[in-house]
Amino acid sequence: MSYYSKDFILKTDAAKKLYHDYAVKMPIFDYHCHLSEKELLKNEPFTDLAQIWLGGDHYKWRLMRSFGIEEKYITGNAEPKEKFFAYCKALETAFGNPLYHWSQVELEEFFGCTLEINQKNAQAIWDTVNGYIKEHNLRPYDLIKMSNVTCVFTTNEAFDDLTTFPALAEKYPDLKVYPAFRADKMMNIDAPDYLNSLSKIEAIEGKISSLAELEAALERRLLAFIEVGCRASDIAPDKVYPVSTQEEADRVLKKAIAGESIDNADAGVFKGYMTYFLLKLCAKHGISAELHLGATRNNNTVMFRRLGADTGFDAMSQADSTDLMQKLFDRLNTEGHLPKVIVFDLNPKMNTSFVCLMGCFQNEEAKGKIQFGPAWWFNDHQVGIRKMIEDLAALGHLATNVGMLTDSRSFLSYPRHQYFRRILCDYLGTMMENGEITADFELVGKMVQDVCYYNAVSYFNI
Amino acid sequence: MSYYSKDFILKTDAAKKLYHDYAVKMPIFDYHCHLSEKELLKNEPFTDLAQIWLGGDHYKWRLMRSFGIEEKYITGNAEPKEKFFAYCKALETAFGNPLYHWSQVELEEFFGCTLEINQKNAQAIWDTVNGYIKEHNLRPYDLIKMSNVTCVFTTNEAFDDLTTFPALAEKYPDLKVYPAFRADKMMNIDAPDYLNSLSKIEAIEGKISSLAELEAALERRLLAFIEVGCRASDIAPDKVYPVSTQEEADRVLKKAIAGESIDNADAGVFKGYMTYFLLKLCAKHGISAELHLGATRNNNTVMFRRLGADTGFDAMSQADSTDLMQKLFDRLNTEGHLPKVIVFDLNPKMNTSFVCLMGCFQNEEAKGKIQFGPAWWFNDHQVGIRKMIEDLAALGHLATNVGMLTDSRSFLSYPRHQYFRRILCDYLGTMMENGEITADFELVGKMVQDVCYYNAVSYFNI
Amino acid sequence: MSYYSKDFILKTDAAKKLYHDYAVKMPIFDYHCHLSEKELLKNEPFTDLAQIWLGGDHYKWRLMRSFGIEEKYITGNAEPKEKFFAYCKALETAFGNPLYHWSQVELEEFFGCTLEINQKNAQAIWDTVNGYIKEHNLRPYDLIKMSNVTCVFTTNEAFDDLTTFPALAEKYPDLKVYPAFRADKMMNIDAPDYLNSLSKIEAIEGKISSLAELEAALERRLLAFIEVGCRASDIAPDKVYPVSTQEEADRVLKKAIAGESIDNADAGVFKGYMTYFLLKLCAKHGISAELHLGATRNNNTVMFRRLGADTGFDAMSQADSTDLMQKLFDRLNTEGHLPKVIVFDLNPKMNTSFVCLMGCFQNEEAKGKIQFGPAWWFNDHQVGIRKMIEDLAALGHLATNVGMLTDSRSFLSYPRHQYFRRILCDYLGTMMENGEITADFELVGKMVQDVCYYNAVSYFNI
Repeated sequence: MSYYSKDFILKTDAAKKLYHDYAVKMPIFDYHCHLSEKELLKNEPFTDLAQIWLGGDHYKWRLMRSFGIEEKYITGNAEPKEKFFAYCKALETAFGNPLYHWSQVELEEFFGCTLEINQKNAQAIWDTVNGYIKEHNLRPYDLIKMSNVTCVFTTNEAFDDLTTFPALAEKYPDLKVYPAFRADKMMNIDAPDYLNSLSKIEAIEGKISSLAELEAALERRLLAFIEVGCRASDIAPDKVYPVSTQEEADRVLKKAIAGESIDNADAGVFKGYMTYFLLKLCAKHGISAELHLGATRNNNTVMFRRLGADTGFDAMSQADSTDLMQKLFDRLNTEGHLPKVIVFDLNPKMNTSFVCLMGCFQNEEAKGKIQFGPAWWFNDHQVGIRKMIEDLAALGHLATNVGMLTDSRSFLSYPRHQYFRRILCDYLGTMMENGEITADFELVGKMVQDVCYYNAVSYFNI
Repeated sequence: MSYYSKDFILKTDAAKKLYHDYAVKMPIFDYHCHLSEKELLKNEPFTDLAQIWLGGDHYKWRLMRSFGIEEKYITGNAEPKEKFFAYCKALETAFGNPLYHWSQVELEEFFGCTLEINQKNAQAIWDTVNGYIKEHNLRPYDLIKMSNVTCVFTTNEAFDDLTTFPALAEKYPDLKVYPAFRADKMMNIDAPDYLNSLSKIEAIEGKISSLAELEAALERRLLAFIEVGCRASDIAPDKVYPVSTQEEADRVLKKAIAGESIDNADAGVFKGYMTYFLLKLCAKHGISAELHLGATRNNNTVMFRRLGADTGFDAMSQADSTDLMQKLFDRLNTEGHLPKVIVFDLNPKMNTSFVCLMGCFQNEEAKGKIQFGPAWWFNDHQVGIRKMIEDLAALGHLATNVGMLTDSRSFLSYPRHQYFRRILCDYLGTMMENGEITADFELVGKMVQDVCYYNAVSYFNI
Repeated sequence: MSYYSKDFILKTDAAKKLYHDYAVKMPIFDYHCHLSEKELLKNEPFTDLAQIWLGGDHYKWRLMRSFGIEEKYITGNAEPKEKFFAYCKALETAFGNPLYHWSQVELEEFFGCTLEINQKNAQAIWDTVNGYIKEHNLRPYDLIKMSNVTCVFTTNEAFDDLTTFPALAEKYPDLKVYPAFRADKMMNIDAPDYLNSLSKIEAIEGKISSLAELEAALERRLLAFIEVGCRASDIAPDKVYPVSTQEEADRVLKKAIAGESIDNADAGVFKGYMTYFLLKLCAKHGISAELHLGATRNNNTVMFRRLGADTGFDAMSQADSTDLMQKLFDRLNTEGHLPKVIVFDLNPKMNTSFVCLMGCFQNEEAKGKIQFGPAWWFNDHQVGIRKMIEDLAALGHLATNVGMLTDSRSFLSYPRHQYFRRILCDYLGTMMENGEITADFELVGKMVQDVCYYNAVSYFNI
């Protein structure tokens, strides 16, 4: 038996009651993730635990590198089983790291294996779980069902083929899978493959030789997304840039199209305009914007050349976007084009100033129109989630929060919702037992259920 | 019965003893607030709870907007009772927000109403409290007496009429009400109404056509303030600016007087000089400076146009003032003009670097000459107060702290002192029970009383 | 009896077991301190407690100034006993300040005096401890032995005489004392005494008239350091500067040699290059770099003129070095010259972004190749250490950490290792009792011992 129990994280009786009587039964609404809708449609059975856990999870790769594991056992040509053993070695003492909890919970919740993950148990876990996977012929949709997921927003590039979505609706009538509209590749004008990305939009929407044409093409793409259920757009600049004019942005786009090199200043001009444009587009079409701020990517050039993007070499930017976000939101608001926005903040030093600023743009359009997004990526651990909850509660209104998401490429990541829910219930339960909030379980339980599920349903108009 | 009890926040026996035997009996010294001395002199009875709570409190308005309440029920033309009900709706689940505690405590301490604030109880609270207000004919001075307040610093513009203060001294001989000198309107040279503000000083002190004349006029005003008891000056630039020369500042002032527009650079030049000048003036006349740093105001232009300033649309600046504060303080110190300063920090990311810097300018002139001010405005909640206490204790000397203030426009806000005292006693009591500080109650209790009251009395030379 | 007990800081049974059964028996490896190897060789007996505690400890001086103690009793001509009494006065209520704990623990651990430090006990402590010091004829090496220290890295200027180290090895065969190579005085080209420092290198290595010659001289000095056991270099720029070219840096050096004044821009150019060069040099010779970032020094000019450097007037810089550190590390890594680096972060607002960035440069060269250094200087207190542990655990891998150091000028500071170990065990013990990590004491205990000692032994190749 491992350390994980049914009352994991729940330190008071009140917390236990809130979790077991209210939170746990709520379905999951996963409004941002990187699941592949195509894989979900194919629904092919898994092969082994190494494939599931270590095939593409750069969180785990990163932890292994921190522990000094050879790259051979991470992304190299070692055997799957050797990789799994290496992971167990790095994980067994990763106390305080979210992977330590996530991995144990996944093991127990999905594969019924209660062995503690460590080197001693590695062989037994390997045998048990792989046997279980084969025996149950486990497939992606099984995990989704086991997790009680009702709605998933995948994130899709503006030029992605959307035909999978109607097929999914037909195949899984009790599961809503909608694409979130992502146009970052049209915004990141200094990316080496920018023209290649542009050509993919052109292949669908026709030749683009000006900003006006790009805008029109993107709007047509968004309408196509909305047609298949899209309710949100993912927008992820590394920071907020000043809003430049359409003319300036047009000039930069034309430079890029002409094959000229785009320097930082030009790129900033274009990104500033496009962030503004995309938010405006969301407002126009009544969808929510999910604004992910503060990631710096591919920080290790050697490894980027060797392994490419999304392999565990990203970090958080030091840029503080508070003041520029005020200008951006105020301008959109003044023009009547500020959509519902969920702000994801990667550098927690900005938590308080972000939540504080959001309070200046709340109104009757929604309960929590401007949302402080859940603790994101490098903050997605107990310390980060607690801080996110505390900061939102103290400076805003926690009860309006749309709750957790997975932000994951893996069908196994749904326990992250449980993790968030346990921490939320522990936070509220502790206050209840300390006599700092009402002891009315009905009221607090309802609020828990709102945050876990109903707020998101209502926020995204499902 | 609500969740609020006599041991609210106090989690250990030691904390309870420190609070009940030492803290609670201390009078209140409120060295910064926005109470109106004129209202206190008039002392007119209150009408109803909506007037008292929702008539002008932008903290509450902001919370309601976050909850998606229609503006009609906030600052609009809905009935007082409807507004009160809307507030109860937004408040009942505002767990972790300071208003959740403040409102409940105010209800119980001032109106003896122990009903928990929620929608179910809204009608009963409305009836009970309004009945109580009428029956007891409650007036501002009653609340002040109930709160055991002995000294209040109102904040007054440099051009304010000061005749109310002697009248107050006569009417309430056991209460000291003194104005804090505020010259921000003379510093904010880029404000649209700058010349209007200047003309108000001119109406008292004569024509001002140069910086030298402005300085002389402000010094004469400060002397008039000191005549009626003033012991402190409130100075509130959004951040610390570099100290410019008298010549540069004079040039900008003359531009403004000539009606020319003042850009950001010019405004910074002027604010940098004026912050320096005002601090020097404090040193010269032996009063303390209360330096409020980091607020950005009126961030929502639409609502500013509709409702004006101080209506719930302010936020915290991202600017880090640590390095410029070093230059400012070091220059004043080198010139022999560094006054006692209380630094209020709105963005908590600067807590540690601010407290650290203050340690470089402490000396025998006072116990805690440079003070780290209490958790201010957006930080005035349990998380913020605990962090403020912890940071000061770890990096400075908590026992020298001058304690809490209300910073409020409401006569009902005195429980915020209790709130601070409970958190302080809980902090110390926990350490005592954990064997991390002495168990000598006499010593710790005396320190608690110093922080709650005596330090402020001595710091402000009352 | 004072509040200090054998279970100090340890709040759970698991924490107590981890500390008493695993941590406490570990020797101390102090990989960064300011002890004088010459004093250790001389090993002269101490005279009295005022000399030991207040002779040169600017932490204590600073606390006394914060409490409003007259400078006469701090660095002035008051009697040693008066100074000690003044310190007791400032300390008795310094709850939450690390000195409150450090002083009490030092009193009990080294002098067997269990009296609580306060004004009432000052005379008794003075008599007891001074009697003890005389009776036992206490000397530096006694304290080192009592503390079970096996290895110490002193920090030595590049031009320091190194003959003491072989003498120490002979005198104390069971203690390793090695110098860490410090070339900051060669980097701080804008320091008034730069040419004087340069001349000290020249006295050993010959005339230096170009950057190439300086680099060669420094490399020869490092080899001399390595000869006597050096395993690490201390590098302490106030922040990370952009890496400039050799040509630019050469130009600035020649300007300085020519006696021309060096402005901030020039100084930045030179520091940027030298930080890069020194890290590269570490990589070349296989030693670790200890990169101390973020101190601003001598912030109070009046006191600097009166007392000189290192007298309690330093602070933390606001500069965020995350993005420039990415560029620096990525360049070194791309060139194959990124050494093992311990990053010490003085401003805790950067903790998360630093740890996050480090994760991008970990690899199989070491378990925790890029280390997040222990809570440093102004962060070396319970709040700071807990935050350091939490941030590293959540964002990196705590079990790879090389543990604590003293960073002190005093032979009495070794209890700081105990302090860290207690906090570490309390952190892990709490999680164990909460069912958030394994209950396998063997595994967790081994990890504790790694962090306390073995990781450092292996990291520094001892």
